[in-house]
Amino acid sequence: MLNVHLVPHTHDDVGWLKTVDQYFYGDRNDIQHAGVQYILDSVVDQLIKNPDRRFIYVETGFFYRWWKQQSPSMQQTVKQLVNEGRLEFVNGGWCMSDEATTHYSAVIDQMTIGLRFLNETFGVCGRPRVAWHIDPFGHAREHASIFAQMGYDGFFFGRVDYQDRNRRRKAKEQELLWRASDSLTPPMADLFTGILPNGYNPPAGFCWDQLCSDDPIRDDPDLEDYNVDDVVQRFLRAAKSQALVYKTNHIIMTMGSDFQYENANLWYKNLDKLIRYVNAQQANGSNINVLYSTPSCYLQELHRANLTWSLKTDDFFPYADNSHNFWTGYFTSRPALKRYERISSSNLQSCNQLEVLGGPISRKGLFGQGDSETLRKAMAVAQHHDAVSGTEKQHVANDYAQRLAKGWQHCQVLVSNSLASLTGSSAERIYCDNLNVSVCPLTESSKKFSVSVYNPLGRTVTWPVRLPVNGTAYSVIDAQGNSVDSQVLPLSGATQEVRRNRGFAVNELVFQVQAPPLGYSTYSVSLLQDQPSPSFPQHGAPTVMQNKFLQVTFDPDTGLLTGLSNLETKQTVKLTQNFYWYNASDGNSPESQQTSGAYIFRPNSSTPFMVNSKAKVEHFQNTVVQEVRQWFAPWVSQVVRLYADSKAVELEWTVGPVPVNDGQGKEVITRLDTSIKTAELFYTDSNGREVLQRRKDFRPTWQLKQTEPIAGNYYPINSRAFIKDDVDQLTVVTDRSQGGGSIYNGSLEIMLHRRLLYDDYRGVGEALDEQSEIFPDGLVVRGRLLLSLERPAVAADTHRPLAQEVVSQPLLSFTDGGLSQNTALEFSGLQASLPPAVHLLTLSQWDEESVLLRLEHQFQSWESKVNSQPVKVNLQKLFSTLDVLGVSELNLSANQWKEEMSRFDWTPEKDEKPLLKTFEDPSVWEVTLRPMEIRTFLLRVTLK
Amino acid sequence: MLNVHLVPHTHDDVGWLKTVDQYFYGDRNDIQHAGVQYILDSVVDQLIKNPDRRFIYVETGFFYRWWKQQSPSMQQTVKQLVNEGRLEFVNGGWCMSDEATTHYSAVIDQMTIGLRFLNETFGVCGRPRVAWHIDPFGHAREHASIFAQMGYDGFFFGRVDYQDRNRRRKAKEQELLWRASDSLTPPMADLFTGILPNGYNPPAGFCWDQLCSDDPIRDDPDLEDYNVDDVVQRFLRAAKSQALVYKTNHIIMTMGSDFQYENANLWYKNLDKLIRYVNAQQANGSNINVLYSTPSCYLQELHRANLTWSLKTDDFFPYADNSHNFWTGYFTSRPALKRYERISSSNLQSCNQLEVLGGPISRKGLFGQGDSETLRKAMAVAQHHDAVSGTEKQHVANDYAQRLAKGWQHCQVLVSNSLASLTGSSAERIYCDNLNVSVCPLTESSKKFSVSVYNPLGRTVTWPVRLPVNGTAYSVIDAQGNSVDSQVLPLSGATQEVRRNRGFAVNELVFQVQAPPLGYSTYSVSLLQDQPSPSFPQHGAPTVMQNKFLQVTFDPDTGLLTGLSNLETKQTVKLTQNFYWYNASDGNSPESQQTSGAYIFRPNSSTPFMVNSKAKVEHFQNTVVQEVRQWFAPWVSQVVRLYADSKAVELEWTVGPVPVNDGQGKEVITRLDTSIKTAELFYTDSNGREVLQRRKDFRPTWQLKQTEPIAGNYYPINSRAFIKDDVDQLTVVTDRSQGGGSIYNGSLEIMLHRRLLYDDYRGVGEALDEQSEIFPDGLVVRGRLLLSLERPAVAADTHRPLAQEVVSQPLLSFTDGGLSQNTALEFSGLQASLPPAVHLLTLSQWDEESVLLRLEHQFQSWESKVNSQPVKVNLQKLFSTLDVLGVSELNLSANQWKEEMSRFDWTPEKDEKPLLKTFEDPSVWEVTLRPMEIRTFLLRVTLK
Repeated sequence: MLNVHLVPHTHDDVGWLKTVDQYFYGDRNDIQHAGVQYILDSVVDQLIKNPDRRFIYVETGFFYRWWKQQSPSMQQTVKQLVNEGRLEFVNGGWCMSDEATTHYSAVIDQMTIGLRFLNETFGVCGRPRVAWHIDPFGHAREHASIFAQMGYDGFFFGRVDYQDRNRRRKAKEQELLWRASDSLTPPMADLFTGILPNGYNPPAGFCWDQLCSDDPIRDDPDLEDYNVDDVVQRFLRAAKSQALVYKTNHIIMTMGSDFQYENANLWYKNLDKLIRYVNAQQANGSNINVLYSTPSCYLQELHRANLTWSLKTDDFFPYADNSHNFWTGYFTSRPALKRYERISSSNLQSCNQLEVLGGPISRKGLFGQGDSETLRKAMAVAQHHDAVSGTEKQHVANDYAQRLAKGWQHCQVLVSNSLASLTGSSAERIYCDNLNVSVCPLTESSKKFSVSVYNPLGRTVTWPVRLPVNGTAYSVIDAQGNSVDSQVLPLSGATQEVRRNRGFAVNELVFQVQAPPLGYSTYSVSLLQDQPSPSFPQHGAPTVMQNKFLQVTFDPDTGLLTGLSNLETKQTVKLTQNFYWYNASDGNSPESQQTSGAYIFRPNSSTPFMVNSKAKVEHFQNTVVQEVRQWFAPWVSQVVRLYADSKAVELEWTVGPVPVNDGQGKEVITRLDTSIKTAELFYTDSNGREVLQRRKDFRPTWQLKQTEPIAGNYYPINSRAFIKDDVDQLTVVTDRSQGGGSIYNGSLEIMLHRRLLYDDYRGVGEALDEQSEIFPDGLVVRGRLLLSLERPAVAADTHRPLAQEVVSQPLLSFTDGGLSQNTALEFSGLQASLPPAVHLLTLSQWDEESVLLRLEHQFQSWESKVNSQPVKVNLQKLFSTLDVLGVSELNLSANQWKEEMSRFDWTPEKDEKPLLKTFEDPSVWEVTLRPMEIRTFLLRVTLK
Repeated sequence: MLNVHLVPHTHDDVGWLKTVDQYFYGDRNDIQHAGVQYILDSVVDQLIKNPDRRFIYVETGFFYRWWKQQSPSMQQTVKQLVNEGRLEFVNGGWCMSDEATTHYSAVIDQMTIGLRFLNETFGVCGRPRVAWHIDPFGHAREHASIFAQMGYDGFFFGRVDYQDRNRRRKAKEQELLWRASDSLTPPMADLFTGILPNGYNPPAGFCWDQLCSDDPIRDDPDLEDYNVDDVVQRFLRAAKSQALVYKTNHIIMTMGSDFQYENANLWYKNLDKLIRYVNAQQANGSNINVLYSTPSCYLQELHRANLTWSLKTDDFFPYADNSHNFWTGYFTSRPALKRYERISSSNLQSCNQLEVLGGPISRKGLFGQGDSETLRKAMAVAQHHDAVSGTEKQHVANDYAQRLAKGWQHCQVLVSNSLASLTGSSAERIYCDNLNVSVCPLTESSKKFSVSVYNPLGRTVTWPVRLPVNGTAYSVIDAQGNSVDSQVLPLSGATQEVRRNRGFAVNELVFQVQAPPLGYSTYSVSLLQDQPSPSFPQHGAPTVMQNKFLQVTFDPDTGLLTGLSNLETKQTVKLTQNFYWYNASDGNSPESQQTSGAYIFRPNSSTPFMVNSKAKVEHFQNTVVQEVRQWFAPWVSQVVRLYADSKAVELEWTVGPVPVNDGQGKEVITRLDTSIKTAELFYTDSNGREVLQRRKDFRPTWQLKQTEPIAGNYYPINSRAFIKDDVDQLTVVTDRSQGGGSIYNGSLEIMLHRRLLYDDYRGVGEALDEQSEIFPDGLVVRGRLLLSLERPAVAADTHRPLAQEVVSQPLLSFTDGGLSQNTALEFSGLQASLPPAVHLLTLSQWDEESVLLRLEHQFQSWESKVNSQPVKVNLQKLFSTLDVLGVSELNLSANQWKEEMSRFDWTPEKDEKPLLKTFEDPSVWEVTLRPMEIRTFLLRVTLK
């Protein structure tokens, strides 16, 4: 018997053409017909009608909205459906996250809140066994690793490169075992992975949703057009043909699609008939058995088949659905939103931590009611594969940003409450969210203020602080009462332009701050009267810029970078850097009408235009920072910065408004050309964690026919990319997700901004032409790249902490005037800094008496002699102000006790040896973290 | 309190853009999203959820399809909903019939089968109290009269002339009392009539169907876009504004539209909220109360208000939705379908009668199983306002025709069985359905055959018969063995062309036949060998053509008619007749972009083009018939015929393929211009029954601003139109529904055919450009007009029986070869002819032991000195072969005993005296029919 598992499902984007709430309510159906409240209403009704029927639901962000509007009796009904397996949750995160542009930290968070809701609402029957990413546009290895650690038995998705799919169909390798970490001991990050047969749609001709137009089954012989025989024969053909490209005598068919099942009766009424009539053919010798099923039932049958499965260790990027159709544009699309999401992630971590450290008074305190939940949910929604990906409509992008902003407002109250408690000061706290464009009304006007620097990391960190001011000299005093070296620079013309009347500072005050682990330090700033004007810039480029670690050289004629040296290791590479733009395809090409758009990157030539061969340059040099300010065009400028004690060069780029009055869409990159002999290799991170090797015009698991020499060599960069040879490694740490590639030997390019004039026919229906009230002439985007040059063997010792500091940035808060005397100027929540290898990934309040803790080993097993070692942390000795009364380890998503976690075991075709031995924890309190391991604990705590 | 009655409803066209069965199943949703099976599934589900919810259902043709697929438990559930008034049937006919192009006989039939199904399924709670014609494009007085006689308490519709509506809104006369007969004693044909506020749609902004895009009610304060206050305020405004144009403190809102409620949850979920939130405002002083309701609940409140209502005695034609948008094209659209429907109606009556007369063996006999039900249902469907109206898509028109053809096939078997029983002959019967184009394979080739002429009328009738033959002379012998005068004429070129290779006859055999009431007579025809060729035509027009009743004169130069005389009354009128075409608007006019289309008639000039000022003519004259054959163009020809004993001149027109290669759509008319002094008046029938006076550029109930001098003066002609002055009345009897007008004094024009190149923006989405396999170059249509000239006071004595003979045409059946000796050659089902005033409207089998009988007085009270008198019929002495064992009188639709019929009484503003006294029946058996009365009886019968 060939068993056909029909899986009724709906794919409900948590925002795309409409906002998440518009989708929930079925608002703005003129944009797209979709109303999730009705889908859930309808599916539950239809499940009740026939106990054979099954349904899966995926997006807990929607389910939660619906659930809280239901009556107790309806809730009871739904619980019964879940208990009986008729309604099954799959994936179960708040959303179905994007895989190319998300950071693992936020993905884990969004999965956690979704799965927690299911756990608390439905118990064990509500726990998803299957991960389900049917729509994301390419698949990250780190996602698979995360899913494995969350206890999923398998993973299904719909989109895969067309060449990859063709080979896998022939080889029957559409189902495989993905070994998703090079560091974690198998099967810890092994994930059975299935590529669905029709994306996530039903086979052609069998879509019975109200959104489809396929023939319904017309089985009344008294009416015209009786078609049962035709439908049955067509279905038998479809099933047999599908069975040819899969391994077992079980196949799966996804019976649903985007926002389907709003009127579930249409689907189920016809599926009931299909099952009845197809199975009736068994009496005539048919060997096909159709059944209502779910992905977990299907997976169970695959597992029961006890076969071996091909092993995959790379990832599924980039995704192309045809030869000129590479989905590599969205790696960069909406760079401002991508950055805002990343800042919000950092703010959320600080907010979570301060909620724990400040205790209950954080949520309801001096400054009113605050919460972390609003931002947590906004962040969860922002992980959706049409959110941070940049592939939504403009008004929806605005909604995501607004939610983050609202979430941050709620957090600000919480943070103020918490800091009031920790500092003992009731002074009002002010937050300046526009420091990136040097806007902060307080610092612009105040003669005396303080700035508290909260450090969400588990170790002491030093950052530079830049504050917009109008004074020419300031006194800065640290928590210990020591004076801190500070400097005032004039604001650059580029910054004055990009702030667009939102501030009036003429100068910037720059100084280094330091904050203790999981704690804050407070700096007092006072205007010094009657001081001379700050140093004016020196025109032209310096030949050299240098601190104790690095030397940066420039061409005085062009103003461009020429080289970079590490003074400690005595390495030097040639390094030129410039800005270019690819001319976006407008669809008028003989090979393909594909345009560049929100999803797709398709330059109409492989040679980008240089913005300018020379930069107008001015430079500054003082004891805190050295800056070279480069001006390439009215819409492209950059500051090359070297802080006194930094091991990285900062490139602060400002791009926009990208001019399009020539009718040409532009995709702006910066390119670093070096003397490093890269041999067609470069490296990118996966969701900010493990690093994968990329080779030009090559895919590890199939013979690539390269058809897009640029777009087909682009990969997502979430936190870093690097190029290296035997002696030199140049690592670029980014401040957001971006796309990039290494097209030439020694070269690394990163796409910064995109302004396009055509939709790219993947559904969004808008050109990616960002404008806003502030930027009606086109969005201006600013960002930073941090460059480090190291020996390859030790490079991670620099780039891991560097990237960590960019991801988890300090949270600055300001108070006007002087500080009251009993203010505690410094605080650390930890007893001591964590070891360099350990990242305190999560510390957040779980319920009244417990907190969720995630500790992470942030090095891959091969990255560092020093740091790629198991490391121990004693949980009891962790916190300075919390007594840990009890601890239980959980799976990564915190919806199952670690000890109860039991996953299907799968056999790869050719097994490899475990990369690491397993160590036993010597005690309950002391936990060991191995490279790339994240361990999740529920701690029962009380404030000391 | 202002009470707002929300009436959830769906309007389900029984065919329009899709066929009736495609609509039922939700097939071809690519054409239009609509699936009635799902609507009923969904509504029942939703009604169960909340006992406050109400729904009305209208089209029993759909409900029946759904009902028979339901399980017994679902049927029980639905019965309960009906018993509790939560599901209410309104209208309840098989379809919502068209009012402009239907014949009363077929409308009564379709209402009867729908209402019978409801009666038998649901009993008294299933009986509709309200007639509901929300979509038909203008409203016929005869429909209102029929509805009144069916016992409806009131009637609601949506479409009314925009000028009429404006006046009625101001005068609060959108609700009125319609006195729908000038002959029936009030309140027999009085019908309370309500014009709905928004057509049949909800007020703007409150459409919550899946087909709409209005804002859902977003009442979760935790989500974005909470809008309860906005919705409530908008609704209060809408209700108050509507209340200003109606009389009582109850108003109705139709919450639904075309094929809505497929997912009823969307509507009900939001309506539940609307009711809750709007009524909650009463606590804040709001005086608006919203409730789920039905038209009958609303009507009850209007009745309870005990007001007086304006009285209307004319009709609601023509309908214009704006100044250049007159829906008068569909009066003629699809003339071939309109004719086929009329023929099918006649065939169905014969089939029904022969089922009764032949007894049970008719349904299962010598020639297999036959039935009348298939044709009855096909005819019922064909009455729909997008069926016989001609406003459906071409493929749907084909479906209607195919259903009628299939129905006729089933009837043919029944008729053969019945005639075999009545004649005692087992000879195979052959039916020639293409005699109108002289095609009949049997008569074309047979040397000896017989033809049985079945007469469905209640009196002896004489008709001419024309059979295609290849012989030159035949012997025709009647049932009594007498020779019948017959003549052979050569087939005209026009006919040879229009038959398009479907036959090969070169001649036609013409003779008069006579058949007894409700019976048949058989004629034997034998080819006579060695006879001379038939008379060749004489070229040119005669100056005169004459029989004992009439004289017709021609202009020998032009070949056109010049005059008509009644030789008995010694009347003569000048009469010229010719063919013209209006140039259809293509939308390029400064006043309006309206085109002519399936619905709309809009000539781009008021002056039509003459097809030809002269006709090529040939003529024949023999003892049976005189013919003048006129040829105007390759696409327009006509035969003017005068049979030896006819009181009417026959104009057999053939039009098509209408040439459109000049890019101009054409609307072809024939115009009769006479010397009659019409004083801007003319007369048309209403659904084939009562005649209404029409005046040029005038409406009886409002001050017309005429904006379309031609289209705005067109009215539906269902069976006849006439013009008259004090001395002459020229009546034209048509063979199908057509549009016509009297634009000039003494003139009457009738639109015959339309071929158009543009859609007219009323939804059908196709140009009315009929083509078929047989006529790929454009449809050719043939038809007949019968002209009679009489004194006005007695004209009805001629035109009533004449039209009756056209509507109820004889049914010819043929047998090949000689007849067996014991064949009964003649039969009558009646003991005697009925009086001339009485029409046997219905005789059909009701169940095993009873038959349905309708007797009709077919004269208006003012039409005839002789015939406009009460007339008695004795039911027991009616039939020759049936014993009537019992009789019960019913309402017109046969779903209620007459004595139990009790309707709301309504008071007109100015009452008029009853037109007629009421007579008492002297006995149970003898029944009296008064002018225009139809009486419906259930007879318990047995074959003698």
